[in-house]
Amino acid sequence: MTIIGSVVKRVVKKSLIVTLGCVAMLATSAQASEKVYRLKLAETWGPNFPIFGDATKNMAAMAEKMSNGRLKIRIDSANKHKAPLGIFDMVKSGQYDMGHSGSYYWKGKVPNTLYFTSMPFGMTPAEQYAWFYHGGGMELMEQVYSPHNLLSFTGGNSDIQMGGWFQKEINTVDDLKGLKMRIPGFAGEILAEVGAKPTNIAPGELYTSLERNTIDALEWVGPSLDLRMGFHKIAPYYYTGWHEPGSELQFLVNKRTWERLPADLQEILRVAMRTAAYDMYPQATHASGKNWSTIQQTYPDIKVKDFPPAVMKALRDANDRLLAQHAEKDEQAKAIQKSQADYLNQVRSWTNISHRAYLNSQAQ
Amino acid sequence: MTIIGSVVKRVVKKSLIVTLGCVAMLATSAQASEKVYRLKLAETWGPNFPIFGDATKNMAAMAEKMSNGRLKIRIDSANKHKAPLGIFDMVKSGQYDMGHSGSYYWKGKVPNTLYFTSMPFGMTPAEQYAWFYHGGGMELMEQVYSPHNLLSFTGGNSDIQMGGWFQKEINTVDDLKGLKMRIPGFAGEILAEVGAKPTNIAPGELYTSLERNTIDALEWVGPSLDLRMGFHKIAPYYYTGWHEPGSELQFLVNKRTWERLPADLQEILRVAMRTAAYDMYPQATHASGKNWSTIQQTYPDIKVKDFPPAVMKALRDANDRLLAQHAEKDEQAKAIQKSQADYLNQVRSWTNISHRAYLNSQAQ
Repeated sequence: MTIIGSVVKRVVKKSLIVTLGCVAMLATSAQASEKVYRLKLAETWGPNFPIFGDATKNMAAMAEKMSNGRLKIRIDSANKHKAPLGIFDMVKSGQYDMGHSGSYYWKGKVPNTLYFTSMPFGMTPAEQYAWFYHGGGMELMEQVYSPHNLLSFTGGNSDIQMGGWFQKEINTVDDLKGLKMRIPGFAGEILAEVGAKPTNIAPGELYTSLERNTIDALEWVGPSLDLRMGFHKIAPYYYTGWHEPGSELQFLVNKRTWERLPADLQEILRVAMRTAAYDMYPQATHASGKNWSTIQQTYPDIKVKDFPPAVMKALRDANDRLLAQHAEKDEQAKAIQKSQADYLNQVRSWTNISHRAYLNSQAQ
Repeated sequence: MTIIGSVVKRVVKKSLIVTLGCVAMLATSAQASEKVYRLKLAETWGPNFPIFGDATKNMAAMAEKMSNGRLKIRIDSANKHKAPLGIFDMVKSGQYDMGHSGSYYWKGKVPNTLYFTSMPFGMTPAEQYAWFYHGGGMELMEQVYSPHNLLSFTGGNSDIQMGGWFQKEINTVDDLKGLKMRIPGFAGEILAEVGAKPTNIAPGELYTSLERNTIDALEWVGPSLDLRMGFHKIAPYYYTGWHEPGSELQFLVNKRTWERLPADLQEILRVAMRTAAYDMYPQATHASGKNWSTIQQTYPDIKVKDFPPAVMKALRDANDRLLAQHAEKDEQAKAIQKSQADYLNQVRSWTNISHRAYLNSQAQ
C-alpha cells in the first residue's frame, strides 16, 4: 500500500501538474492568440459604393485572414447607420470602433481636419503620401485628431479630381461671376470668393439639376465615378482639375478600441488599413482610364478644357487669401499650412523634372 | 487494494486522458498557431543600401510583428551571399526561400522577365501598379515565373529614372553616335541601336570613369540615389528620363516555401511584401525631392535638359524595332507587349487630362 500509495500520489501529483500546466497554457493561448475581437466600422458611403467601399471590404478581409479569424470587422454602410456625415462623432463616442470617411468633412467641427484630404493647388497623390509618411503629415494629423480620442490613418486615394462638367466655356474670370455650381467644401468657398454661387445638391438630384440648368456646372470626382452619373450626356465641357489634386480618404479608429487590441492585432490592423488605402489608388487609376475611354468612345465631342491662366490665378489668389485668414487666427493651421507649402515646394521641383517632363515628352 | 487499485487505475486513466488531450492540444496549437517559420531572403543590394534595402527590412519587421513572432525572415545582403545577380537561381533551387531584386536582371536567362520592372517609353508608377493589379500584369508575371518554381510580387518603385548625367549636350541624333555611356540592360541595347557605345562599369568605378572621360555619360537612378554618388560635381547636364519611367523591384518566393506556410502566414507574407513595395515609392519620392533640392542649392549651375524630339523619336523607333524582334520569335513576349501597349494607351489618356494637365497648370 505504501508503494501503491506513493504511486497514486506520484500519478496524481504528475497529473495535476500536467493538467494545471495545460490549463495555464490553454488560458494564455486563449488570451494571446485565440480571443476573437469584433470591431464595427461605419463608412460614409452607401452599400457597394465603388472603389471607396471596396477599400473597407479589402481592409476587413485582409485583417480577418491575417489574424486567422481573430480580428473580425463588421462594415456598416450609410443605409445602416443613417449618418454618413456623423462618422467622426460615432467613432469618437465609441458607438463605432472605426470609420471610413474624408477628413475635410469635419472642418465645420474641427477646422484643422481640412488639411488632410487634399488642398487646392496642393500635392498630387505621390507627393502627398511622401508628405504624410516622410514629411511630417502623419504627426500633424495626429495632433489634430488625438484630442478627440481618435487615430486617423490614410484611407485611399481617388487621384486628381477633375475640375467638373460645365455647360459653358470659362474664358475669363467674369465667366465665373454668378455661375451656379455644385462644389462643396473649401473649394466652394474659393469659388464664392471669386463671385460664383456654389451650391450643394444631393447626389441623386445632380443629373436633373444640370440638365434643367438649375445649376451651370458641377464637380463630382473624375471618370472613375463620374461615368455612372451620366454627366457627359448633358454637359459638353470637362474641365481639368485644380481643387483636389489627390483626395485621400481616412480610416478613423477609436483610441480605446486601439489600446484594447494586443500588439500583433494592432499591427495587423495598421497594415491592413495602410494596404487597403494604397490599393485604392491603382483601382481608381484603372477605373479612370477605363471609364474615360468609354466616355471618349461614346461621346467623342466632349471637350476637355483647362481653365485659362488668368482664371487659375484668380482662384489661386482667392485660395491664398482664405488660407491666410485661417492661419492668422490659428497657430496650428499656420504650422500645417507651412509644412504643406514647404514640402510641396521641395517635392514639386522633383515632380517637374520627372513626371511632368516625361509626360510632356511622350505627348509630343 | 482493489479499491486503491481502482483509484490508481482511474487516476492514471484520467491523468493519461488529460495529459494526452493536453499534448494533442499543444501539438495542434504548435502547428496552427505557435510554430515559428524561419525564412531566408537574399537581396541583390549591399547591406544598408538606402531605399531598396529599407523595403526588405520593412517587410520582415511587419511580417514578424503581425505574426507575433511566428514568421521570422533573415535578410542576407550581397556581402553575405556574394551573388547579387544570382537571386533568381538561389530562390528557384530553394537555397533561399525568398529574394529581393529586379525582374529585368534575368532577361539573359528567361527573356520575358524583362517586362516586369519598367519599359522604355512605358508606364509611370501609378499606371504600372494599375496594370499589375487590374490590367492583367500580375497574371502575366505569374505565367513567366511559375515554370521556374517561383512566385514574383511587386517589390517597390523607385519612380521615374532620370536619363542620366552627360558631359556634353545632346542636340541631334548624331551626338549619340559613338557616345560612351554606362547604361546597362535593354536601354543599353536601344542606345547601341542608334550608334552609341553602351558599357557596363562597376558602381565603385563610375565616378572616376566619368571624371576622366573614360565614359561620356552615365545613368544611375535619380536624385534619390545619385546624390551620394556625386555625379553632379563632375557633369553639367542632367537629362530627363525615358528608359525607366517607373522601375518596380520584385520579391521572389520559392513555391515550396509558400505552400508550406499556413494560410494566415501566407496572407501576412503577401500583405507585408505588398505594403513594403508600396511604402518604397513615397520614400523614393521624398528622397528625390530632398536630394534634388540639395543638388540645386550646392550646384546651381546644373542644367536639366530634355532630349530633343528628334532624339526621342530615334530612341523610340529603336525601342520599337527591338521589341518587334522579340515578339516575332516568342508568342508570350508578343502577348505581354500587347497587354502593356493597350493598357498604356488607355490609362495615359487619363494621366494626360489629370496629372499632365495639373502639373503644367501649376508650373505656369
